[in-house]
Amino acid sequence: MAEAHYLSMSRRLRKTPFTSRTKAQGVTAFTVYNHMMLPTVFESLEADYWHLCDAVQVWDVSVERQISLKGPDATRLIQWMTPRDLSGIASDRCVYLPLADERGRLINDPVGIRLAEDHWWLSISDSDVALWAKGLARGAGLDVRVEEADVWPLAVQGPLAEQLMARVFGDTVKNIRFFRYARLNYRNHSFIVARSGWSKQGGFEIYVDDVIVGQALYDELFDKGKDLQVRPGCPNLIERLESGLLAFGNDMDARHSVLESGLGGFLSLDTTIDSLSMEALKAERAAGLDRRLVGIAVEAPYGPSPLAENPFISAETNLSASAQPLPEVILQQSDLTHCLGSQAWSPRYRHQLATAMLEEPLAGATDTVVVLADGSTTQARICSLPFDFEKLGILPHSPLPTPAAEALSLTLS
Amino acid sequence: MAEAHYLSMSRRLRKTPFTSRTKAQGVTAFTVYNHMMLPTVFESLEADYWHLCDAVQVWDVSVERQISLKGPDATRLIQWMTPRDLSGIASDRCVYLPLADERGRLINDPVGIRLAEDHWWLSISDSDVALWAKGLARGAGLDVRVEEADVWPLAVQGPLAEQLMARVFGDTVKNIRFFRYARLNYRNHSFIVARSGWSKQGGFEIYVDDVIVGQALYDELFDKGKDLQVRPGCPNLIERLESGLLAFGNDMDARHSVLESGLGGFLSLDTTIDSLSMEALKAERAAGLDRRLVGIAVEAPYGPSPLAENPFISAETNLSASAQPLPEVILQQSDLTHCLGSQAWSPRYRHQLATAMLEEPLAGATDTVVVLADGSTTQARICSLPFDFEKLGILPHSPLPTPAAEALSLTLS
Repeated sequence: MAEAHYLSMSRRLRKTPFTSRTKAQGVTAFTVYNHMMLPTVFESLEADYWHLCDAVQVWDVSVERQISLKGPDATRLIQWMTPRDLSGIASDRCVYLPLADERGRLINDPVGIRLAEDHWWLSISDSDVALWAKGLARGAGLDVRVEEADVWPLAVQGPLAEQLMARVFGDTVKNIRFFRYARLNYRNHSFIVARSGWSKQGGFEIYVDDVIVGQALYDELFDKGKDLQVRPGCPNLIERLESGLLAFGNDMDARHSVLESGLGGFLSLDTTIDSLSMEALKAERAAGLDRRLVGIAVEAPYGPSPLAENPFISAETNLSASAQPLPEVILQQSDLTHCLGSQAWSPRYRHQLATAMLEEPLAGATDTVVVLADGSTTQARICSLPFDFEKLGILPHSPLPTPAAEALSLTLS
Repeated sequence: MAEAHYLSMSRRLRKTPFTSRTKAQGVTAFTVYNHMMLPTVFESLEADYWHLCDAVQVWDVSVERQISLKGPDATRLIQWMTPRDLSGIASDRCVYLPLADERGRLINDPVGIRLAEDHWWLSISDSDVALWAKGLARGAGLDVRVEEADVWPLAVQGPLAEQLMARVFGDTVKNIRFFRYARLNYRNHSFIVARSGWSKQGGFEIYVDDVIVGQALYDELFDKGKDLQVRPGCPNLIERLESGLLAFGNDMDARHSVLESGLGGFLSLDTTIDSLSMEALKAERAAGLDRRLVGIAVEAPYGPSPLAENPFISAETNLSASAQPLPEVILQQSDLTHCLGSQAWSPRYRHQLATAMLEEPLAGATDTVVVLADGSTTQARICSLPFDFEKLGILPHSPLPTPAAEALSLTLS
């Protein structure tokens, strides 16, 4: 059942300054993100997960491309793009900025850094935000230069991340607060270093803007972390689902509004900021939502129990009694019925975890019947995100003797 | 040396209506293009090549996403985006439209189809053109709706393509001229069918806009083509290099101007059209080009002879005498020195073929010394594109007894 296919390399799928290193270190799979290579698996999804939660990993997240917006109108343009109020953002802050169009639909959800009064970097997820910004600026005659910067972020993640970073950058890293950044010196080069990263295990992101110095830094992180069991790693599907970190394109996409995606808490809908999506989002909030992103949890004590592509059936449908093959799901712009997002088996909670964009009233239910990939049906919990395992009464476990999630590690990410 | 890595599947890398079929038919590798899966190899790059030149293949090129621009200002917006004159385009024409920004740099190079006076589809290469168009339209207050259409093109390519298409759609397909389209009926559904496709072996593209009918069509093409040796296929690197078909992102990218990319013949720089890039491109033409996309041919009678990542050395550099590892190339926005594009070994011409964006005066030379992937150096021809093998005195051959290009088939595309 495991469908493993090779990725054809080409110049169009850009390498990073660290690709030759992650290959030498045994990366087994990649995905493609912002026209660039992103490692997805080293030892295995499950082994990588436990290690991330126990020690420290260095991640090549160069695919977090930095879109540079510079000029007198840079802040005005970004405010158009995001319904989050930019006024009063401290100069050393990293700020999560859902971007939305005039219909309130998601364009991307970058983390923004304000480098100077007239200069921002947007650290984007997977869509060409630079093209949208360039179009808006040119169409409206704004004075701002938009380009992709030559920056390839490295993340250092895990409970031992601070210890490793202090060995390389000095104890000054300990003073960086969560979602703040500082400019730190390394071999006579100044890097922006933030306490951030796409896991909840703690850590930092280094905005590498020099290939040669960045490669030396990469190597030194491994040299100085040997006794900390440092390993190469990457954003981990299990960890990020357990932690409720959303992935644009997987959990929600350009068909969904910012509010449907559960990002309302980041918006400033009660202010008078000049933002393209304000009107649509206010109207949507007033009318109430037809669909919402939720969490799904299926008890699976002995290993993966993957959900079917379209797992949501009405109670009346007796699918197991029919000989029909399970329907495959082809994403369509025009089709917004119940939609499964990401899924993975959590070896810690021994549940199959998933996200799903569900229509009301199902979105508001607490449980339902779902179809599994093998065609059988079972009971599933529906909950808000991030998962509150304690509230759900789901207890954590230690690792099973042998990794059980391998069959899935290549088909899901 | 062959570096084979798996592609991690996820919802973000969208499947097409035909992905389950190409998997069942034995696809071995994919690439990712416009956030969607594109098959790249079935039997092998070389076997797929000979078959494409001999028979007929059905390609899942759903990744050629259709950006729909509809409204009173649709044509005005597209004219902004392309420096090619849109006036007088016949209603049944497919038209190649390089898109360029105000600096004359490439954004994409779609084929446009005018569906109605106020409605176009742009069949795009790999970048989010919809975001650029949405930005321009919103910024300038144009009355046009921009969205990705639910269309998944199929290509039928090869010398027997017309014969197969006639069996499915009737002899009317024979009346469609090159780069023209017609609306043809299939099972009570009207499909746009064009005589086009990303090979020079002849064929058609069917703009499938219905999943179920499209899947039936896919299956019928295979049913009715058995005696024509129909096979699943995909754009083939060897064939498209021999034919001089360029790939945005591989041969040229957003750092290069339309003129540098050799697309000047498609532009209308001596007209007064209202297009964003006109001024920059006229100035560039007047000043003369600093760099140009050219072809590279290295004699390789016995099999692949891959070029190094950075193969262009000055005659003085005695690379073979040094113990230095070959430098790796990390593409940077700010770096525009000699740059290798795509490469493949042509089993027909028994040469290693490549594209390269070369600076003057090298771009105007007829030969140079290049570094190969094994660190040795050899003589290479430099020529204009497409390759004119007759003029170069390079003779065609029949297949070698055993395919020799396998070692490369996964590392290059």
